Amino acid sequence: MSKSKINVGNFFEDFKIGQIIRHAAPRTVTVGEVALYTALYLPRFAVQSSTAFAQAIGYERAPIDDLLVFHLVLGKTVPDVSLNAIANLGYADFKFLIPVYPGDTLSATSEVIGLKENSNKETGVVYVRTTGANQRGETVLSYARWVMVKKRDRDAPVGPEIVPDLPKSVAPSELGKAAPAINVGAYDKALAGSRYFWADYDQGEKIDHIDGMTVEEAEHQLATRLYQNNSKVHFNQYYEAQGRFGKRIIYGGHVISLARALSFNGLENVFHISAVNGGRHVNPLFAGGTVFAWSEVLEKAEIPGRQDIGALRLRLVATKDKPCADFPLYGADGKPDPAVLLDLDYWGVLPR
Amino acid sequence: MSKSKINVGNFFEDFKIGQIIRHAAPRTVTVGEVALYTALYLPRFAVQSSTAFAQAIGYERAPIDDLLVFHLVLGKTVPDVSLNAIANLGYADFKFLIPVYPGDTLSATSEVIGLKENSNKETGVVYVRTTGANQRGETVLSYARWVMVKKRDRDAPVGPEIVPDLPKSVAPSELGKAAPAINVGAYDKALAGSRYFWADYDQGEKIDHIDGMTVEEAEHQLATRLYQNNSKVHFNQYYEAQGRFGKRIIYGGHVISLARALSFNGLENVFHISAVNGGRHVNPLFAGGTVFAWSEVLEKAEIPGRQDIGALRLRLVATKDKPCADFPLYGADGKPDPAVLLDLDYWGVLPR
Amino acid sequence: MSKSKINVGNFFEDFKIGQIIRHAAPRTVTVGEVALYTALYLPRFAVQSSTAFAQAIGYERAPIDDLLVFHLVLGKTVPDVSLNAIANLGYADFKFLIPVYPGDTLSATSEVIGLKENSNKETGVVYVRTTGANQRGETVLSYARWVMVKKRDRDAPVGPEIVPDLPKSVAPSELGKAAPAINVGAYDKALAGSRYFWADYDQGEKIDHIDGMTVEEAEHQLATRLYQNNSKVHFNQYYEAQGRFGKRIIYGGHVISLARALSFNGLENVFHISAVNGGRHVNPLFAGGTVFAWSEVLEKAEIPGRQDIGALRLRLVATKDKPCADFPLYGADGKPDPAVLLDLDYWGVLPR
Repeated sequence: MSKSKINVGNFFEDFKIGQIIRHAAPRTVTVGEVALYTALYLPRFAVQSSTAFAQAIGYERAPIDDLLVFHLVLGKTVPDVSLNAIANLGYADFKFLIPVYPGDTLSATSEVIGLKENSNKETGVVYVRTTGANQRGETVLSYARWVMVKKRDRDAPVGPEIVPDLPKSVAPSELGKAAPAINVGAYDKALAGSRYFWADYDQGEKIDHIDGMTVEEAEHQLATRLYQNNSKVHFNQYYEAQGRFGKRIIYGGHVISLARALSFNGLENVFHISAVNGGRHVNPLFAGGTVFAWSEVLEKAEIPGRQDIGALRLRLVATKDKPCADFPLYGADGKPDPAVLLDLDYWGVLPR
Repeated sequence: MSKSKINVGNFFEDFKIGQIIRHAAPRTVTVGEVALYTALYLPRFAVQSSTAFAQAIGYERAPIDDLLVFHLVLGKTVPDVSLNAIANLGYADFKFLIPVYPGDTLSATSEVIGLKENSNKETGVVYVRTTGANQRGETVLSYARWVMVKKRDRDAPVGPEIVPDLPKSVAPSELGKAAPAINVGAYDKALAGSRYFWADYDQGEKIDHIDGMTVEEAEHQLATRLYQNNSKVHFNQYYEAQGRFGKRIIYGGHVISLARALSFNGLENVFHISAVNGGRHVNPLFAGGTVFAWSEVLEKAEIPGRQDIGALRLRLVATKDKPCADFPLYGADGKPDPAVLLDLDYWGVLPR
Repeated sequence: MSKSKINVGNFFEDFKIGQIIRHAAPRTVTVGEVALYTALYLPRFAVQSSTAFAQAIGYERAPIDDLLVFHLVLGKTVPDVSLNAIANLGYADFKFLIPVYPGDTLSATSEVIGLKENSNKETGVVYVRTTGANQRGETVLSYARWVMVKKRDRDAPVGPEIVPDLPKSVAPSELGKAAPAINVGAYDKALAGSRYFWADYDQGEKIDHIDGMTVEEAEHQLATRLYQNNSKVHFNQYYEAQGRFGKRIIYGGHVISLARALSFNGLENVFHISAVNGGRHVNPLFAGGTVFAWSEVLEKAEIPGRQDIGALRLRLVATKDKPCADFPLYGADGKPDPAVLLDLDYWGVLPR
């Protein structure tokens, strides 16, 4: 009786292709979340920081930071999708579609789009397509994600292997949906902090964001609870002391937000993440580590039909306790540098 | 002269039966407090999390979490009532009466309803009836509380012993005042996270909430300051290093909020605490401890005149560094298990 | 290429007399910031805490805490003015001019008003006049500040020495600009927490604020990020481990806000800081330290044309790990007590 009403999460064999999961805990996002997000990461992008700036260029008001939207949507999926996950394997076809403003209520739904048991029969890969919607039912965010999930019972039968066909990158024609028409003439470069617009960046250009940010236990716990992400490994030192690392593992999304905020220095006008092509949490981060970051312009793209903004495909790399003047990523052996935490491939947009 | 304007708190002999104390620092509660509360505890009850959900079932908008209202009201009483308390002994007849919404301003008043000097003449028990009111003067919360307070002067004369007659529990007819008529048909179980309503719980049922949450110094300090609770033992390591435990003591209410948030797993639809029958802080908590919790259904009650909601009388037990699969409470010797932090008896309401 | 787009801050030789710098990242201040500010410092001044209280005495609603306005404005100047500063030397002629309310957007501009190379030719003192403005372009705050900034190149030529003539104190006739006409009859002393008004304080009076507050790393980092102050020394343990102190230095403004909040006990009705005459960060604070504070009434002044409020010129001293019963400031040798963190000289206003 004791656990009959308890959610212990789904195991690999619980997922079925085509299954639709409506996740619990819709969430109204407010200026309260915005202030905390600022206090946790030190973002300084003018559009999200200032209602006056945002309105001048065409937003209704200052929109919610894209990554805060992402964290809130992902957080809802954790109890159903990844409570028994042992690895967060990847993202694809990840698009922001409509701006989110304070007062909007976010809810999330996932569809199981792929299932692949591992040969050890103890785990399998679950692919989901998750959509975040606002209170009007409009999709604000859509992404595919795959995670490695434990089986409850090694011998449980599973269906045929289905691996979805996911795009390597989001096409430029799909970018910019969540950015209103931008009045570039009203975009004040001094207030935004940089004179560099789309035309000023070159493919292959690398930028060391130079600053570093040390993470405390209280900080990542506050962040991850703010996202209502109840993944056990982030909060429970009693169990983690007996676990693989002996300590709490910081939510990977915390590293993404730190790296994005650090990237302001050099990418000040990249005011919006329009899409994520892929991303990998290369190594875990623990409290006490200092996060550094660098970016590379992988590609430049015009957005069809948009003269106001252009897109930069950016690689964002975060490291732990390692400044990025030499852009660390792979070692001489071709393996990732052990200091690398994150290797993210996204489309950012900025004025032309 | 140096201390003449300083509040050093009341001592036992300063309290008089019938004395009314209007507490300082009225407080406007906003979505800022709500976001911080989420970041501190990870509550996921849909009514408080989503304005859209709350409005669908009959609230004006997402109400302020009951315990946040409690902490804010209690915080105001500390400078007058418990600055010189050495123990927080109990609560009774504790009722939420009107929902509190963002933008409301809370103030607090206490009446001294009982006084009982201890035989050592160094301390006495002060009983107060505290009410929290909103900006329209409506009582939103009312509770009796008793604390053990130091005497300034062992030889100070005190009045006759008066111990108020307080109910062992709040009667079902007094429940549900702060819950509007709930449109149960519009209550979306998937969004709320559980299919279990009032009828699905049985008296005697015990639920291990399984998850645990480790507390950091910064977290409980942020929480307790948020409540403007200036009790010295929570913030001042310089003094506490020389004190009984050698470290800061975490505000007992922090444990209540953690346990309540953990109880979501198994009590997802118990969206509102309507009353508290009694509660005891069995042991203190210090930073670094991991809090676990379990619940027992002590009683089921219909609320007279309400077909929409029913009440569960719940025992909520929190422990430190001890998972609750075996529902720890008393040891073989009949004494409380030393891992137990909290033993709370409350009425929760949920849809029928 | 790697650093071409990176802001590495200005060096002494980069500043020119008369230069106007419009700082990046305008910021909309909301109730989210207010809640965090409360959680970080435990302020209890009724005017800022309660919209109902503020409106009763004449404010539109609860104004943003003066020091929060200051921190936000100063934070904006850091990337341009003090990223390469090695010491924050002083403030003068520092005036709050208009109340700031939730929803207002703050931006900041600085003019270089003085430059003085040091004899070692490795550093120089930069004097700026910084103004914070709201979204209507009204100046809400104006102050002069001088910092010691490194030279990039010891041999870089610099202009003639210009040291601005700054007043030793702000004249009473310039006080009270940011305080509306106060309806003193509606000012509820019980709710405010003290019966002492302007007439009750005497020149020379000293007040030990008795309480202490221990600071954690996560707390000062959250605060300083909230202010979007990206000064490197506060966040980067990787670098600071190799630095002068081996640890992160807490933003001096954090100490000012802690001391101001502690000063509530004894100065409950000093609801507004109208001006700062000068201030010195005497010693740095590090996490783990407990901050205490005391105040001295340096001067009492009527404000010309104001019968509602009067001004107290207050010295606010903060110490580290040292209670202030004996008002520590200077040692027998005339040097500052090594426990002193802050020596601030400001004008506070309170009802008459």
